[in-house]
Amino acid sequence: MRENNVKKIWAEGGAVVNAWCAVPDSFCAEVLSHEDFDSVTVDCQHGMVDFQAAVSMFQAIGTTDKTPLARVPWNDPAPIMKLLDAGAYGIVCPMVNNRAEAEKFVGACRYAPAGYRSFGPARGLLYGGGDYARHANDTILTLAMIETREALDNVAEIVSTPGLDGIYVGPSDLSISLGFPPSADPSEPVVVDAMETIKTAAREAGIAAGIHCGSGDMVKRMVDRGFQFCTILNDVRLMALGAKAEIAAARGG
Amino acid sequence: MRENNVKKIWAEGGAVVNAWCAVPDSFCAEVLSHEDFDSVTVDCQHGMVDFQAAVSMFQAIGTTDKTPLARVPWNDPAPIMKLLDAGAYGIVCPMVNNRAEAEKFVGACRYAPAGYRSFGPARGLLYGGGDYARHANDTILTLAMIETREALDNVAEIVSTPGLDGIYVGPSDLSISLGFPPSADPSEPVVVDAMETIKTAAREAGIAAGIHCGSGDMVKRMVDRGFQFCTILNDVRLMALGAKAEIAAARGG
Amino acid sequence: MRENNVKKIWAEGGAVVNAWCAVPDSFCAEVLSHEDFDSVTVDCQHGMVDFQAAVSMFQAIGTTDKTPLARVPWNDPAPIMKLLDAGAYGIVCPMVNNRAEAEKFVGACRYAPAGYRSFGPARGLLYGGGDYARHANDTILTLAMIETREALDNVAEIVSTPGLDGIYVGPSDLSISLGFPPSADPSEPVVVDAMETIKTAAREAGIAAGIHCGSGDMVKRMVDRGFQFCTILNDVRLMALGAKAEIAAARGG
Amino acid sequence: MRENNVKKIWAEGGAVVNAWCAVPDSFCAEVLSHEDFDSVTVDCQHGMVDFQAAVSMFQAIGTTDKTPLARVPWNDPAPIMKLLDAGAYGIVCPMVNNRAEAEKFVGACRYAPAGYRSFGPARGLLYGGGDYARHANDTILTLAMIETREALDNVAEIVSTPGLDGIYVGPSDLSISLGFPPSADPSEPVVVDAMETIKTAAREAGIAAGIHCGSGDMVKRMVDRGFQFCTILNDVRLMALGAKAEIAAARGG
Amino acid sequence: MRENNVKKIWAEGGAVVNAWCAVPDSFCAEVLSHEDFDSVTVDCQHGMVDFQAAVSMFQAIGTTDKTPLARVPWNDPAPIMKLLDAGAYGIVCPMVNNRAEAEKFVGACRYAPAGYRSFGPARGLLYGGGDYARHANDTILTLAMIETREALDNVAEIVSTPGLDGIYVGPSDLSISLGFPPSADPSEPVVVDAMETIKTAAREAGIAAGIHCGSGDMVKRMVDRGFQFCTILNDVRLMALGAKAEIAAARGG
Amino acid sequence: MRENNVKKIWAEGGAVVNAWCAVPDSFCAEVLSHEDFDSVTVDCQHGMVDFQAAVSMFQAIGTTDKTPLARVPWNDPAPIMKLLDAGAYGIVCPMVNNRAEAEKFVGACRYAPAGYRSFGPARGLLYGGGDYARHANDTILTLAMIETREALDNVAEIVSTPGLDGIYVGPSDLSISLGFPPSADPSEPVVVDAMETIKTAAREAGIAAGIHCGSGDMVKRMVDRGFQFCTILNDVRLMALGAKAEIAAARGG
Repeated sequence: MRENNVKKIWAEGGAVVNAWCAVPDSFCAEVLSHEDFDSVTVDCQHGMVDFQAAVSMFQAIGTTDKTPLARVPWNDPAPIMKLLDAGAYGIVCPMVNNRAEAEKFVGACRYAPAGYRSFGPARGLLYGGGDYARHANDTILTLAMIETREALDNVAEIVSTPGLDGIYVGPSDLSISLGFPPSADPSEPVVVDAMETIKTAAREAGIAAGIHCGSGDMVKRMVDRGFQFCTILNDVRLMALGAKAEIAAARGG
Repeated sequence: MRENNVKKIWAEGGAVVNAWCAVPDSFCAEVLSHEDFDSVTVDCQHGMVDFQAAVSMFQAIGTTDKTPLARVPWNDPAPIMKLLDAGAYGIVCPMVNNRAEAEKFVGACRYAPAGYRSFGPARGLLYGGGDYARHANDTILTLAMIETREALDNVAEIVSTPGLDGIYVGPSDLSISLGFPPSADPSEPVVVDAMETIKTAAREAGIAAGIHCGSGDMVKRMVDRGFQFCTILNDVRLMALGAKAEIAAARGG
Repeated sequence: MRENNVKKIWAEGGAVVNAWCAVPDSFCAEVLSHEDFDSVTVDCQHGMVDFQAAVSMFQAIGTTDKTPLARVPWNDPAPIMKLLDAGAYGIVCPMVNNRAEAEKFVGACRYAPAGYRSFGPARGLLYGGGDYARHANDTILTLAMIETREALDNVAEIVSTPGLDGIYVGPSDLSISLGFPPSADPSEPVVVDAMETIKTAAREAGIAAGIHCGSGDMVKRMVDRGFQFCTILNDVRLMALGAKAEIAAARGG
Repeated sequence: MRENNVKKIWAEGGAVVNAWCAVPDSFCAEVLSHEDFDSVTVDCQHGMVDFQAAVSMFQAIGTTDKTPLARVPWNDPAPIMKLLDAGAYGIVCPMVNNRAEAEKFVGACRYAPAGYRSFGPARGLLYGGGDYARHANDTILTLAMIETREALDNVAEIVSTPGLDGIYVGPSDLSISLGFPPSADPSEPVVVDAMETIKTAAREAGIAAGIHCGSGDMVKRMVDRGFQFCTILNDVRLMALGAKAEIAAARGG
Repeated sequence: MRENNVKKIWAEGGAVVNAWCAVPDSFCAEVLSHEDFDSVTVDCQHGMVDFQAAVSMFQAIGTTDKTPLARVPWNDPAPIMKLLDAGAYGIVCPMVNNRAEAEKFVGACRYAPAGYRSFGPARGLLYGGGDYARHANDTILTLAMIETREALDNVAEIVSTPGLDGIYVGPSDLSISLGFPPSADPSEPVVVDAMETIKTAAREAGIAAGIHCGSGDMVKRMVDRGFQFCTILNDVRLMALGAKAEIAAARGG
Repeated sequence: MRENNVKKIWAEGGAVVNAWCAVPDSFCAEVLSHEDFDSVTVDCQHGMVDFQAAVSMFQAIGTTDKTPLARVPWNDPAPIMKLLDAGAYGIVCPMVNNRAEAEKFVGACRYAPAGYRSFGPARGLLYGGGDYARHANDTILTLAMIETREALDNVAEIVSTPGLDGIYVGPSDLSISLGFPPSADPSEPVVVDAMETIKTAAREAGIAAGIHCGSGDMVKRMVDRGFQFCTILNDVRLMALGAKAEIAAARGG
């Protein structure tokens, strides 16, 4: 089975720089995949992306060596299993708040006896290779989002869930849940401490710590602090940044 | 009928900063339309966009006050008329090389007796208003691309075509046609002179001069030289610029 | 944040006439939005509409001043949150049968601490405005469908759910649940009484009462009885009515 | 090969009442096909419909006994042949202005030696039957639109084109071309006379006369005058008629 | 209401040969429907098919006399009810492991009082007929997949669920759940015995037994053993079989 | 620029076995690309495929090492240039009947001064590589279909067109044009001789000879006769062959 590049980078002690797709279009995803990211995540939660578009986006990403991942809209077996069958090499699951939810999530990504994923890998087989059934449980990445006070309180039991490969911090939701306005790059000490607590818990449990970042600069800071999977904004936010800079130059002085 | 903002800016002596959509997705187009452009052009030629996607992109642009335009794949009546019926407020037509082609193009954009556009404005009526039939010929913009040596030789007869509102320089094709490698911001004197010749011919004929630009900085230079309709790259190129800058910051100094 | 026109009409003591879209197409939705409705609801339950089509339909509605709403297929967080992120200004949720279900529904529409909606408003931000995060909880409309005997029995506890803005009667399902054939305009006294009971409970709880109507005439009757949010059939039923009338004229007396 | 119902009705001396689809959606087309029309035309010219949507619309129409037709965006071989391969049982071609254009149009609909249609009937074979190749030239309907002054001047030579099954009047374009505002139901004597001239020329040449009508009432009048193929508005106009009537009732007297 | 051909074949003592669609395209589904199958199932679980594509696939199947069915991605009311409203004449539900899940599944397919399906049959009404509401509960097919050890243990209580029309064995998942590698045509005695146990339980409960088969040959064997609803691979597997055979011939001996 | 595998095989004296896609779906194209073909052609003429679907199909093919090609609907610049910009590595052009048409076709595939292709390679750049502009004229394949009596008469002048890489015989159209029923594997001596004449003319002109074949067996025969580019039916025909074989086994002898 094709190797999971994210796992390889982690095994080598590196940190992954991840792209994020909110536009439900495969050409847009392909252009983004040609930039210097390590993985590309199709966002089926807050992105404007549904399953049918995701399939063609995975195909676009699959023309490059970037690892295709997906964020599901919710911790439900249907989107998790469908996106894996479409060729996602890992799932980011939002709002995992306790051990039971973590187990539900991980189980949906693993064939029995490790979980309850239903067999029929379809495009996953084309992308992963003929031995998909044998290696999928070890190759597919599971990242649980820790983004609420409840999850923070339960972080120890979540990170120790068998089969969980990492956690992923959602700074905006975490900020809201802790009583502050949403922020993509929180400076509020309570939130910053929570992010540190989550990261430490993950690393001590031997799994990876990831986080959604509001800029490339934040990625650098987070990697320096020990995060190993850092996303930079998303496709449309990058486009808007590019547009603002060029328009400013166009409209002059 | 809703006013054509591009014509209004020109009437006030201003220059239009235009966005360009290569991604066949309405959400992407809507995000771009929220940036500080004056108009947004759906590129049905080199963009990955076909008619069906263009319709929803015009709807997305139509949620803002940016003027929706389209570049057609070729100087054929079918795409010109279909895109106008879908609500485009102007057409950029590639490879207009002589007077006959210019007349063919303009005629496709105008109802009789000014042209041979077929009546049935569909979404154009929703966007433009109930008096569309009466004012369309005066409102819809016609921009002929001058991008070959033949067109350069015939520029005088092209710019004087009745009903033509402006010309639009394609620097890459013009460079190739004049014997140089394609360039989005030509420095080759032969090409630079040709661009100047075209602009001057247009302005002297009393119509607008536009040009596709490789950066915001080029837009500023072109506006200073008298161009009145300047596009900055396109959606995916802006996204790639944004990505490169942020990745550089992420992967650190 | 852009005002919710439905709430404004209610605040002024008026009743909302609502359109209903079963066709998964943005042009059809745009044409309907140009008729004299106050709001337009994209039906993701019984309509042939899934998320990807809904996004472009919201864009189409967004070219007008009609308030965009959505009916979700079921009381699940995923479609509720996705449709809100796509720009819906309110959710109609089917089959809300008790207080727990009402709280689950309302919570999915509200950011913490009022609920558990995940943050990432995407197109909602473009449509609503830059201060979306601050005002969304007060702007987004929540309408719970009361359409079963169980819901009827629990109507008092449902209508008092904090954050619930209104109820919406589904006459066909209510008829079936009470033991009668489905009817879009019930005359069966048991059903008519149930409709009255539901409306009264809502109004006494200080929230709005809505209902799906089988004709414009029924809308008038329901508004006279105190309903404040009345839908007329849907797009294809209106088209069929128009077709029947014109065909009758065509095939002659 | 499945019989062409339009030809059958004509052979029996009847007149066809035709539906017209501008919405690029198969569910909308299917609903319309369940009303009492004889044929359903997918409008790829002024409708918001491109090829991919047209395929699924033909499938939807194909679930009923209504004859599927298409209007092409222009007199080009590509859309004509593609739509026939997709299962259209006839083509309405806009802006046929002289004999050469009529021959170009008819030739694109006929296999050699009668024309130059390329072989590969694809979905046409599924819909028409295994003997499609043998009977297509006799089954597929060709309707040339007569809607300009030039066409009016050349009507005799157009209607006598071998293989042409009928003409189809576009009242709005004909009005414009003759110097009047567009009208779906012209009362201007010059236009009314032109319509009569065209119809008479067709009938005398032994082919059918069709016309686009602005109402069911106009269909009746046109049939009484000898037209044999009459369209009533289109899907969205019928929907808008239905909506206006019901909203008027809803908003009360 | 249109008869359910699957039920008719069973009533006559026959066995159904079923097609399976993983390609989200209506033309592909239509071609497959023209082959000698009795029913065609749109696979929304492991197929690359989401709701919007499924609608057009049902339309394509609906141009033939094959019975349209769907496999849902999971035992959730939303996809079950949406696919029924889109015209599915039966649902195959994966991973039904106990009586409660079986009742949840069946209830989603039945109007009250037999279940809790919400009323609004949309395209189901067009396909089934005007008396859909009266006969749907008796016409719509419910097939629960038995494919885990847990389901095997609970098979007696599952097959006796009121309203359940049959069970459907998923050999690959059943193999995995029983501790063996996935197999489309299991020879492992433990699995073979489990398949026999399930079939016997179903037949003794008076409901049908179905199974997914890895070849036409396996269908024959399973029918001989008493299975009454047998699927042959899926569309892409059949295409690959055809391709392998022809390529072998092409590349020669 | 990525090498054109078809040209490489020819340079090595081999023959290409080509796949053909009529289904407008990227998953179907991806599955076919995993079979043992050398190239995969997206059929935008008789296939049910339009531009938007073609883009995602090229992405799917691009996940493998098979060379992506396209057949255009007609000899028009718009579809030729759009499909090349979308990443096609070659164009099969139908109905090329004389030298002027051949030059028109080839010119649309070549940048100046070799032709008049407009510059803006978009996805072609992603697929081909950063030096696309420099090598495209030498890499992109041009195959003219010879399938009419007129083309047969003009074959010498067609095959000597500068920049033409090969011809492609369409046996069905050629049969019809020569006065016989369409046949995918003609045995009629007149047609067989014409095929031989065309092949010989191509080979003598130093360009490749290709042909559409009705079976793998025919491919073998054609390769033995000197054809170097042979297509086996198409996706749906292969699927139907697979279905017929398995159904026969299922319904059993």
